[in-house]
Amino acid sequence: MSQAASALASAAVPTVTIADVEAANARIDGQIVRTPLLESAVVNEACGARILIKPEMLQHTGSFKYRGACHRVSQMTDAERRGGIVAWSSGNHALAISAVAARNGIKATILMPSDAPRTKVEGARRLGGTVRLYDRATEVREEIGAEIARETGAIIVPPYDDPYVIAGQGTVGLELAEGAKALGVTLDAALLACSGGGLVSGAAIALSSRSPATKVYAVEPAGFDDLARSLASGKPERNAAGAKSLCDALQVPTPGEITFPLCQALLAGSLVVSDDEVKRAMRLVYDALKLVVEPGGVVTLAAVLAGKLDVAGKTIGVVLSGGNVDADKFATIIAA
Amino acid sequence: MSQAASALASAAVPTVTIADVEAANARIDGQIVRTPLLESAVVNEACGARILIKPEMLQHTGSFKYRGACHRVSQMTDAERRGGIVAWSSGNHALAISAVAARNGIKATILMPSDAPRTKVEGARRLGGTVRLYDRATEVREEIGAEIARETGAIIVPPYDDPYVIAGQGTVGLELAEGAKALGVTLDAALLACSGGGLVSGAAIALSSRSPATKVYAVEPAGFDDLARSLASGKPERNAAGAKSLCDALQVPTPGEITFPLCQALLAGSLVVSDDEVKRAMRLVYDALKLVVEPGGVVTLAAVLAGKLDVAGKTIGVVLSGGNVDADKFATIIAA
Repeated sequence: MSQAASALASAAVPTVTIADVEAANARIDGQIVRTPLLESAVVNEACGARILIKPEMLQHTGSFKYRGACHRVSQMTDAERRGGIVAWSSGNHALAISAVAARNGIKATILMPSDAPRTKVEGARRLGGTVRLYDRATEVREEIGAEIARETGAIIVPPYDDPYVIAGQGTVGLELAEGAKALGVTLDAALLACSGGGLVSGAAIALSSRSPATKVYAVEPAGFDDLARSLASGKPERNAAGAKSLCDALQVPTPGEITFPLCQALLAGSLVVSDDEVKRAMRLVYDALKLVVEPGGVVTLAAVLAGKLDVAGKTIGVVLSGGNVDADKFATIIAA
Repeated sequence: MSQAASALASAAVPTVTIADVEAANARIDGQIVRTPLLESAVVNEACGARILIKPEMLQHTGSFKYRGACHRVSQMTDAERRGGIVAWSSGNHALAISAVAARNGIKATILMPSDAPRTKVEGARRLGGTVRLYDRATEVREEIGAEIARETGAIIVPPYDDPYVIAGQGTVGLELAEGAKALGVTLDAALLACSGGGLVSGAAIALSSRSPATKVYAVEPAGFDDLARSLASGKPERNAAGAKSLCDALQVPTPGEITFPLCQALLAGSLVVSDDEVKRAMRLVYDALKLVVEPGGVVTLAAVLAGKLDVAGKTIGVVLSGGNVDADKFATIIAA
């Protein structure tokens, strides 16, 4: 990875290093849940591999997003805190920002799409965030956010294209490497969900340093496979307008400016799963692991179950990234 | 507790000591999941207390029962192993015995009530157990089990009235005490579900030794409050025939012979919750913790939420004991 690292260092956009992830890890210590590494005989048998599962739905606010939010806020000055935060999110980043802001006495304005899950919109409000809904089809959230920032002096905390956020999400990779080491195993591969790429790029930075033999894969939902196509073409590709997916958390139109070069340098590839493959994985997680996982949170396990990667006899790290799903939708999927 | 301990030592039935729980803990090390201690701001707020949650649905086979089964089997001789195991259970002990037996190459016959949840019956079969269904109303499982044991030479592994099983379940109490200590807190109280009393008596042995300031409470479902009434009267009381409860896992007719004296000596009381209180707690666990909990597994949190104990401002350990619930039942409850 040293060639890749030097290539990154010379790029125009900011980058993130293992030192940044380690610094984030120290800063958020005691404020986040150090999620366990779970293993299930039933899941192993279903996958034909040893699957070590990192359940980030057990993180505060039900997803890994709390890590990045927590880290970004830890680096705000007192003056910045007084100006507040503005953020946009399909939901999990909104919940995380709302909770971290409330814990630190900071005002937060959150832009969420009008079709976001109720549990995410109501959750952000309950946590004290001021939610402003926008129309995915006709409004650009980055523009609304910039306007609010200009008017109020608030700091923008983007969901993924921010070095502090990426470093915070990268602590998932550090813990994955440490957990595997504690079990005396080396992960042959690690899979992480990808939307804007903050989680997978951050985790890849950590794993490439702490577990260099581990291949890191992104997983995307069908219709939102911009990273897979961008890695193939070598430039940022966009998803078709109007694409639909069960995975509400993974619907960013194109790879991030900071995250894409990291993904190009560090990932072994990006796998793509269908809604039906996601539903099957949600049911297995219910049956075998007794965890509530949201559609976008289970694309990793869905990819393994659907045979998108040759895992036979290998040891695979699988991050389940979130569990914020409306009860009626979850009920329909598991009882089908 | 020293008077209680000496009173127990002089009783005719076998008893279990902290040394037994510690021995069990060493024997099952590496074979069980050391479940984490979780905390949720949402749960704390709903309860008006600091609630430390031990999620035993993350244990192998989805409940704490794996601990006791694992310990009992670890103490079987080679000759006993060749004869096999016979066990009876409403479900979670069946799953645990089936899995532990299969892992050790031991044949297991399991008696289960014909109205047990499908997920439990099918699960035990899938794990390799030979399931024999019986009619709760007309057959006595202890008699059928004894007959099978006579005919086949199998060892009976009872669900709770067995010193090895109680000591194994007691490791939940050890971990609860250690987890609280690691956080620098002392639990004011610990709550554990009670059916035959293996879990609550075992955990009370551990907690009375490791965290003597912690009051230990059993929690039972309405209609199956035999322990609460037995503690009040000082002698084993029976539940009315035909009682119904959502909590399929907690329907033993009367306290155990070994467990009842332990409960008398060590518990601060037994709390009783309704089906509606259980459903409310299942929804909170879904929303705030992203865990799948079965009705009988959540009576503890249900009791706190329903104000059955004065917890204001206190620190309370709550064990969620299992997560094996049919998907259609779970779906109906969380989506209500």
